[in-house]
Amino acid sequence: MRFSQLLIPTLREDPGEAETVSHRLLLRAGMIRKVAAGIYTYLPVGLRVLRRVEQIVREEMDRAGAQEVLMPIASPAELWRETGRWDFYGKELLRFKDRHERDFCLGPTHEEVITDLFRREVRSYRQLPANFYQIQTKFRDEIRPRFGLMRGREFIMKDAYSFDRDESGARLSYQKMYDAYTRIFTRCGLTFRAVEADTGLIGGTSSHEFMVLAETGEETIVYTEAGQYAANVERAELLPEPPPATPFDYAALQSVPTPGVSTIEQVAKYLKVAPKRVVKTLLYTAGDTTVAVLVRGDHDVNPIKLARLLGAVEATLATPDVVLAATGAPVGFAGPIGLKGITVLADHAVAHMRNFVVGANQADTHYVNANFDRDFPSPRFADLRNAKAGDASPRGDGPLKVAKGIEVGHVFMLGTKYSKAMNAVFLDPQGHEQLAIMGCYGIGVSRTAAAAIEQNHDAKGIIWPLPIAPFHVQLLPLSPSPSVLQLADRLHEALTDAGVDVLWDDRDERAGVKFNDADLLGTPFQLVLGDKSLAQGVVEWKSRKTGETIKLAPDQVVTHALAIIRG
Amino acid sequence: MRFSQLLIPTLREDPGEAETVSHRLLLRAGMIRKVAAGIYTYLPVGLRVLRRVEQIVREEMDRAGAQEVLMPIASPAELWRETGRWDFYGKELLRFKDRHERDFCLGPTHEEVITDLFRREVRSYRQLPANFYQIQTKFRDEIRPRFGLMRGREFIMKDAYSFDRDESGARLSYQKMYDAYTRIFTRCGLTFRAVEADTGLIGGTSSHEFMVLAETGEETIVYTEAGQYAANVERAELLPEPPPATPFDYAALQSVPTPGVSTIEQVAKYLKVAPKRVVKTLLYTAGDTTVAVLVRGDHDVNPIKLARLLGAVEATLATPDVVLAATGAPVGFAGPIGLKGITVLADHAVAHMRNFVVGANQADTHYVNANFDRDFPSPRFADLRNAKAGDASPRGDGPLKVAKGIEVGHVFMLGTKYSKAMNAVFLDPQGHEQLAIMGCYGIGVSRTAAAAIEQNHDAKGIIWPLPIAPFHVQLLPLSPSPSVLQLADRLHEALTDAGVDVLWDDRDERAGVKFNDADLLGTPFQLVLGDKSLAQGVVEWKSRKTGETIKLAPDQVVTHALAIIRG
Repeated sequence: MRFSQLLIPTLREDPGEAETVSHRLLLRAGMIRKVAAGIYTYLPVGLRVLRRVEQIVREEMDRAGAQEVLMPIASPAELWRETGRWDFYGKELLRFKDRHERDFCLGPTHEEVITDLFRREVRSYRQLPANFYQIQTKFRDEIRPRFGLMRGREFIMKDAYSFDRDESGARLSYQKMYDAYTRIFTRCGLTFRAVEADTGLIGGTSSHEFMVLAETGEETIVYTEAGQYAANVERAELLPEPPPATPFDYAALQSVPTPGVSTIEQVAKYLKVAPKRVVKTLLYTAGDTTVAVLVRGDHDVNPIKLARLLGAVEATLATPDVVLAATGAPVGFAGPIGLKGITVLADHAVAHMRNFVVGANQADTHYVNANFDRDFPSPRFADLRNAKAGDASPRGDGPLKVAKGIEVGHVFMLGTKYSKAMNAVFLDPQGHEQLAIMGCYGIGVSRTAAAAIEQNHDAKGIIWPLPIAPFHVQLLPLSPSPSVLQLADRLHEALTDAGVDVLWDDRDERAGVKFNDADLLGTPFQLVLGDKSLAQGVVEWKSRKTGETIKLAPDQVVTHALAIIRG
Repeated sequence: MRFSQLLIPTLREDPGEAETVSHRLLLRAGMIRKVAAGIYTYLPVGLRVLRRVEQIVREEMDRAGAQEVLMPIASPAELWRETGRWDFYGKELLRFKDRHERDFCLGPTHEEVITDLFRREVRSYRQLPANFYQIQTKFRDEIRPRFGLMRGREFIMKDAYSFDRDESGARLSYQKMYDAYTRIFTRCGLTFRAVEADTGLIGGTSSHEFMVLAETGEETIVYTEAGQYAANVERAELLPEPPPATPFDYAALQSVPTPGVSTIEQVAKYLKVAPKRVVKTLLYTAGDTTVAVLVRGDHDVNPIKLARLLGAVEATLATPDVVLAATGAPVGFAGPIGLKGITVLADHAVAHMRNFVVGANQADTHYVNANFDRDFPSPRFADLRNAKAGDASPRGDGPLKVAKGIEVGHVFMLGTKYSKAMNAVFLDPQGHEQLAIMGCYGIGVSRTAAAAIEQNHDAKGIIWPLPIAPFHVQLLPLSPSPSVLQLADRLHEALTDAGVDVLWDDRDERAGVKFNDADLLGTPFQLVLGDKSLAQGVVEWKSRKTGETIKLAPDQVVTHALAIIRG
């Protein structure tokens, strides 16, 4: 294709609105333009990337035996009322009324619609397993849409829903999707990890997130080098540590003044001890209950684990008022000694601490040399903190490492949550009605494109992985001489005929402008045609990623390109 | 693909909700299912048809030099306010508010969004012409959605928008789209006509509708056998006829009682004259004006032509009150003689009538032998009626024929309507700002699929044109014998590998059920494997359309299939 015949409005300056690398580069490379907050038009080059991702997703879903359907964007409220999500879902569900005042929403996900289809059209166990997927525009009315395609309101998603006869079938369907997702992100040329994820209140036995690894990722994951274990930090299990072998002596409990010293860093510095010798006491509220949670000074409480332990929807840090009422002291001085009328919980890592520092439930005061049982009763110990680098893997395969990631896919065992609410049954071999066991599986198609940029870029621009690049090769004639232009024309035609996607920069621009735009657009290979090299009978084939340049005779170009593209 | 692994819920009975052939057959063949009024889920087989149509559309748009983009479904009100359409557009524009109470609509068309993109991103005449298209889900909140995919609320459309430097460029862009549309519907295997269409109040010089011809079509078109002229009946021009050569004598005007005889049919029968000897006088209201329109008894007034003549938005039949006030008589007895204080207009075909019948502006009374000038002043004559079969073509290429059609495409010269309202300018070679000249071009993708069925079906089901058929061949093993099943397996694999789309009916069903479903689904060819024919070493290749069956040796099947599919 000719550059001059496509709308590719590249920008030299960073646009003010962009907060992340992918947002900035998608705008600068002229791939998207904002229409409203979190709502974009895909320009020709950006759309080509989406189509590449879609095609890989479609091929692998088909290969995994899923059937493509297309459900509507407008979703009637009746179905959402059956599952309770019409009320439960927050403002992210964009609700509207049609001209007859009937309630609808813009579908952010399609469990209700597909379960309704299933219960109407599927009768018998013989029709199972079944897995339906679609690639479709979805809408979530995010309160603060941002980061371009990373957290948009209107976005493109592949969602799939499996229906099985029983748990073992459902596990198999889940595994098929897990494998398909692994193939999809591998084929997209991305570095990623599938990590165990929190199943939250939906329950079920399994949930995995597929994370594209990138320093700019919003999510934190832990994994082992051996690769047997990987999890979202919110979910990563931590086992109790064995007691230390070294004996110790109880030192005398002592109350010390710590004026204005309320954070762990301040306390440790003031008392000249390591933060890991301090026990942090944090009050959390879950529903009507307030609890005190003890964690080591260098650890963080994981509110999701805490909520799960308490059987609550969520646990949030108690307000200063609540802290004052419960401990008699302002925030920063809570401690387990003498704490009354409140359940105390402690993280496993605190269990073997001795002679530690705690707050004294009195302003500007701490205790040193506190110990369990002697100074206060041993609390219930549990896994209540976030994992961090160096923690032991729960699978026993070595220390955990930490990485940042972007969630691009999520596979989920749903069980009977939706089939029960909507009475989606089938007849088993004995003619009895059974609830279908469901799974759901999502891939953010537009987000995958953005995540690819977060992972693959440099100061000059995007570096697309070849399988999802909008073009394979960017043809850069550097001079307007007839020999260069004729060869450009010939190579453009020959490459295109051979099935290579070429973007021919046919603009009347300086070499510098063409190189800058080629680097910005991130086409994996640049084919450079200059008078000098042409006088030597060669053209230059340059890798965008490595910068490596090789010289080729014009007649070798097609063969070379095909060898690389076909891998 | 295996029938058993796809959701194809065929129905034996006609569903009650279906009003047209395509609606009924799409439901019965298990291709779509209703989610809400005018809102459907496309099941796997139905979606395959859409994808075929989309692919043909995409290839021809690309070939015509258009650039594919993707605009959002959610469209901000600000843009629609700039063109005035936020207020002007009726309830078909589905409006909603986001969580921050900002106004949006679900885009039924995208002139505003693309014009906004143009004015922001296109600067120079060097970037023109440009044509942007998308294939996208659209929403129109029809008051009475019906006929399945024919008049849905959520539907799939290809819309394109061209921008040119000047009128001659815009005409060229228009012609390119006209040619692309001709190729698209030809490639879809449909019988269609491009007809001149009304440009309405949008103005501009040209507009064509692409009509798939079908007896069940809602639109009426006229055309000549020679093919030089074709138009929507609303738009078809009719020229004044030459005066008759035969002399005539004035007969005496006579008032006759016609008790309870008010329709043309009744009057003609009662007075024993042909309807074409009667002049029908109809009162129309356009804005504040009421006019009387005279047409021949066997003709119909065309309110669009009348409105255009009056420079009004629309002209509607006057209410009985207005008729009574203006003529002094109830509806059915209006006439031009003695009619006061009201403009009288007459269709060209009335100009040469002599000694005709008219209403007498008095209940139960008509005049016979009325004549212009003698009995009432000659009114202004104009083209005010619908064309009918046998009328002369305005191009002089013979008599007009009439056909019914379904509008599947519309090309439109927009001129500067949107570029002016939104100040979409570019710099000309002299550095002056000029308004872009626009065109817009739509194809109803889902409607095209439905129209194909309206045109191609019989009592047993759909007969898909090969290029948009969900499958090329339906493989029908009629017996569970090992030799039949093994051959089915082998042919399924061989055909699939050769690029032939096969639907293998692998269900454990009777031959009759398989044949019925194959006829219903409309796969163009059926490959029948039976024990008897197999004993003779042959299989049967049957055309769904003609019923013609040929016998082939199993080894000939792939070659035969490829020869047909590749045309």
